[in-house]
Amino acid sequence: MDELRGEDGFGGYCLEDLSVGMSASYARTLTETDIVLFSGITGDTNPLHLNQDFAEATRFKGRIAHGMLSASFISAVLGTRLPGPGAVYLSQSLSFKAPVRAGETVIARCTVTEIVAEKRQAVLATRCYVGDRLVVDGEARVMVPTRT
Amino acid sequence: MDELRGEDGFGGYCLEDLSVGMSASYARTLTETDIVLFSGITGDTNPLHLNQDFAEATRFKGRIAHGMLSASFISAVLGTRLPGPGAVYLSQSLSFKAPVRAGETVIARCTVTEIVAEKRQAVLATRCYVGDRLVVDGEARVMVPTRT
Repeated sequence: MDELRGEDGFGGYCLEDLSVGMSASYARTLTETDIVLFSGITGDTNPLHLNQDFAEATRFKGRIAHGMLSASFISAVLGTRLPGPGAVYLSQSLSFKAPVRAGETVIARCTVTEIVAEKRQAVLATRCYVGDRLVVDGEARVMVPTRT
Repeated sequence: MDELRGEDGFGGYCLEDLSVGMSASYARTLTETDIVLFSGITGDTNPLHLNQDFAEATRFKGRIAHGMLSASFISAVLGTRLPGPGAVYLSQSLSFKAPVRAGETVIARCTVTEIVAEKRQAVLATRCYVGDRLVVDGEARVMVPTRT
């Protein structure tokens, strides 16, 4: 998707470069290390993420990752790929549909659904999957620089 | 707020313990270290967070933290304090109102606004502040265990 990128050397799209249906993704294997570090950085030390004995006694039958960790992969797409650097994150809705466990590979996919030219904004459908399983559903709104 | 906690040793509130207006918070100083680690864990290496030269040329006039990092402090409140362990995170809306910079102290505050007993759900207003400045506004919905 590099052919439409801006010319500032940091690769963000301008509003004029965007069209409905454009899509980008970021995928990575979510590891136990990520969960431990995320707990420390965010203060979310919920035993559902860190204590196997506790987590086994819940409906999840074992430790699961923080929903906000998978959701943050959406921020990675928006901030580095589509629209990329220069865009300003305005809002995000998140619906946590299913748990993610250490070792599973999450793909965050963002697709432009609307361009609001007069506000210099774009709306994107933002979804995270593990295989075919939808784990996070939502929508993002970003402000995007224009060429002018 | 310990007096109403459940009896499982992990301290989460049950639905019967919640009432509209109950509130809890989590505050911490957001450091450069947090920003660097969050970038690595999430893959969001947007230069707005990591490259001072790039960031100085933007409207923000310098590096800012990831919005999702401040927002994750909301998850810390929900997962560890109110309702705490045992609650299931269903959804979260986030509106990013103002930037946060390394060295600033963020307080995430969650307040119960609605209890939907028949669905075993609670709705909370979720806001992050730096001093009096609202930086993240939003709403969370969680499923909460009952005593029965």
